[in-house]
Amino acid sequence: MKRILVDMDGVLADVYARFFELYKEGTGLTKTTNEIMGLKEAEAFPEAIRWVETTGFFRSLPVIPDSQRVLKLLNESYEIIVISMATEYPASLTDKQLWLNDHFPFINWKQIVFCGNKSLIPADLMIDDHFKNLDNFDGETIMFIQPHNINAVDHHHRRVSSWAEIEKILL
Amino acid sequence: MKRILVDMDGVLADVYARFFELYKEGTGLTKTTNEIMGLKEAEAFPEAIRWVETTGFFRSLPVIPDSQRVLKLLNESYEIIVISMATEYPASLTDKQLWLNDHFPFINWKQIVFCGNKSLIPADLMIDDHFKNLDNFDGETIMFIQPHNINAVDHHHRRVSSWAEIEKILL
Repeated sequence: MKRILVDMDGVLADVYARFFELYKEGTGLTKTTNEIMGLKEAEAFPEAIRWVETTGFFRSLPVIPDSQRVLKLLNESYEIIVISMATEYPASLTDKQLWLNDHFPFINWKQIVFCGNKSLIPADLMIDDHFKNLDNFDGETIMFIQPHNINAVDHHHRRVSSWAEIEKILL
Repeated sequence: MKRILVDMDGVLADVYARFFELYKEGTGLTKTTNEIMGLKEAEAFPEAIRWVETTGFFRSLPVIPDSQRVLKLLNESYEIIVISMATEYPASLTDKQLWLNDHFPFINWKQIVFCGNKSLIPADLMIDDHFKNLDNFDGETIMFIQPHNINAVDHHHRRVSSWAEIEKILL
């Protein structure tokens, strides 16, 4: 059975949707996706470093459309490992696990990895939104398009912008 | 550089020391190591399942003697990965990371893995106190002796009862 590493933030969890909300709450202003296209997260939202270190942030994230339905299907045909670079932010760890339990109850605790280096885990396919993870990966790669990676030149990774596309490729 | 997987509970963190304290706080009675030799954790302390699910438990554990000094030395000659089966207990995750930051500040967040299946990560050597982890591991193994594993028949794993012994073997 092929093993797939599935990232959380920007792939299952809609981090930007929450960033837009918090920006509006903090400033009263509205920022749009168009304004942040091509910017790194810290350029688009300098406040983000403080937000992600706050207990409750990762528990509050909306789910990326179709990810629950498609991941549940994938979980029947592949060995799914949900993996998140989380050890940089201790407060995020418990929140992330509870969020997964809430929204992806079919993912068993044995299928979850919180770490600081994804290259520790060999697999056949990685779905991620960051070059730093995909570029160091030996297997097949799928880049999930997000504002921070949309303009990056890339000839190596297959690019998708929805879970419906992942469904077509893998199922 | 050889990679070593180092377990937390029962190898770096003295879980039993805290169990004895909590037992005394709860009952007023003293339980000794001799009384629990050869018993599984849940047999020795039926209350343990509740204790380990309580926020703060893993943050409060004493450090196993010599583990800080020896692991710091090992960290200069080996690729050390501290790895804990933690995703079964969401409340433990943040506590465990903060405990590591407190007591093992030389372990970088990139060297930490919280998961539910240690066999996902290939390595040369595993130091652990549970057969379920050591028996499924492909590399060299060192079993850290604890009350729950002391009587188990075992012909495969090298057994140690202190970090001073690990120091002699590996340095």
